[in-house]
Amino acid sequence: MGAELTGDAFAGWMHRALGEVEAALGRWVPADAPAGLGEAMRYAVLDGGKRVRPLLVLAAAEAVAGARAAALRAAVAVELIHAYSLVHDDMPCMDNDVLRRGKPTVHVRFGQAQAMLAGDAMQALAFEVLTPDDDPALPPPLQARLCGLLARAAGHAGMAGGQAIDLAHVGHALDEGALREMHRRKTGALLQASVLMGAACGAVDAAAWQALAAYGEAIGLAFQVVDDVLDATQPSQALGKTAGKDADAHKPTYVTVLGLAAARERAQALHAEALAALGRSGLAHTGRLHDLAGLIVARHH
Amino acid sequence: MGAELTGDAFAGWMHRALGEVEAALGRWVPADAPAGLGEAMRYAVLDGGKRVRPLLVLAAAEAVAGARAAALRAAVAVELIHAYSLVHDDMPCMDNDVLRRGKPTVHVRFGQAQAMLAGDAMQALAFEVLTPDDDPALPPPLQARLCGLLARAAGHAGMAGGQAIDLAHVGHALDEGALREMHRRKTGALLQASVLMGAACGAVDAAAWQALAAYGEAIGLAFQVVDDVLDATQPSQALGKTAGKDADAHKPTYVTVLGLAAARERAQALHAEALAALGRSGLAHTGRLHDLAGLIVARHH
Repeated sequence: MGAELTGDAFAGWMHRALGEVEAALGRWVPADAPAGLGEAMRYAVLDGGKRVRPLLVLAAAEAVAGARAAALRAAVAVELIHAYSLVHDDMPCMDNDVLRRGKPTVHVRFGQAQAMLAGDAMQALAFEVLTPDDDPALPPPLQARLCGLLARAAGHAGMAGGQAIDLAHVGHALDEGALREMHRRKTGALLQASVLMGAACGAVDAAAWQALAAYGEAIGLAFQVVDDVLDATQPSQALGKTAGKDADAHKPTYVTVLGLAAARERAQALHAEALAALGRSGLAHTGRLHDLAGLIVARHH
Repeated sequence: MGAELTGDAFAGWMHRALGEVEAALGRWVPADAPAGLGEAMRYAVLDGGKRVRPLLVLAAAEAVAGARAAALRAAVAVELIHAYSLVHDDMPCMDNDVLRRGKPTVHVRFGQAQAMLAGDAMQALAFEVLTPDDDPALPPPLQARLCGLLARAAGHAGMAGGQAIDLAHVGHALDEGALREMHRRKTGALLQASVLMGAACGAVDAAAWQALAAYGEAIGLAFQVVDDVLDATQPSQALGKTAGKDADAHKPTYVTVLGLAAARERAQALHAEALAALGRSGLAHTGRLHDLAGLIVARHH
């Protein structure tokens, strides 16, 4: 994602936000977990990734004047869930991918057993980060709310359920409705939860909550459509992962179902939907969410 | 575990408690999760298992006059974490076991990818069960407390960390201290958390909390020592899993490190430690915890 796409103020905001997220990940992902587990966990989540989900958390928290310290924990927790899902998804029994963020995948580097354990421990760590004993920025009722949102987005009704649908449909035709339903769970649920967890860190009425949920759903789906377009059009080097993998695996994508031109139009339409939802929210400070929606649609990797 | 070991009142209590746990698991583990995921999750956790952890939760909650409805959610959450760990542990990249609770393991029945996803979704479901929107028995501060205890017991400092140590020591000699440290994390942390999560459902002072933590640590370790003794002395049919597996894999066990007679003595000493801790707790209604400690040490499978 390039700062040239957006204003200088946003570029500065993003630079600071990414710095905070990296520092928090570095602090909370334990180097001293036993028998190489910490090393594998840190390899999986540090120094890589676009951090789209943490940025959405922080931007949504700003829109509702939420406490930054609380939002930072939520941002780290969401990224841990995302990163663990990549570790497990890359394993030989799933996508069998060897390259991720330009580096060997975790199971290639540390072995399959350690990769599975690292993923498992990262999921648990997400809920540890959300339940500190001693952080006044995160009172217990907010801890419970964030745990509930994250668990539902990660589990059978969200990410894991979407992956099961994905698994069942390799090599099968899907119509657009079924494809949308798969992605709504597989990637959309966690992207939407990022927005809502940020929103939970501040004061928000029911109408604003609904509008932010609609924003999250639209950008969640737009993210996947753009992913499919990039997978079909960009070389591996630019993506930092193996390009054309989905088509090679006969997985249905927005490009195979709609065609390239219509997929690009769909991304634009979802972008417009997301901005319209922000307009309906009644919130004054949605500028960062506005900018992030643009970045998600215009990204090149 | 046989009712003949204990009094009729305890047998009746256990029968009722097990019925409640099975019913709650049946209600909360979703049959309708997509693309066979729900089927795999239910196969992994329903209709099998000794339910030691849920029983500990319910017994500890009774000791502190905790709400049964809250304790039942905690019991189900702990069992989901335990059951997911078995699913992942049985996979070819870990222990490569084909038999569990007398049935083909999840990856044998549903494939490795679905087994990994089912385990992942079960971990998330544990935290979903602990964060209901609409259960007055589980107010948000208690939800947060239970999520925090469970996450720490399941993650790098607990179960997943212990598994990493286990993985690193296959075929290596371990002294008793290192073996104890591995098991304190691998199985002890979740057994202890079961006791503490039950205790968190009621009113408990710091001294009682410490005593229950000591009880949980002692029975957690006793459980593993007995497991090692049974693995070395019982046929597969009685265990419902492949016997002698640990010795065959050159994993250090209490039997290989201490010898069979000393391992049996160690289990008795830990049993006595657990009962002494209950005596220190100052709690009046520790009868069920007392009986469960006896059952854990005297079990035959």
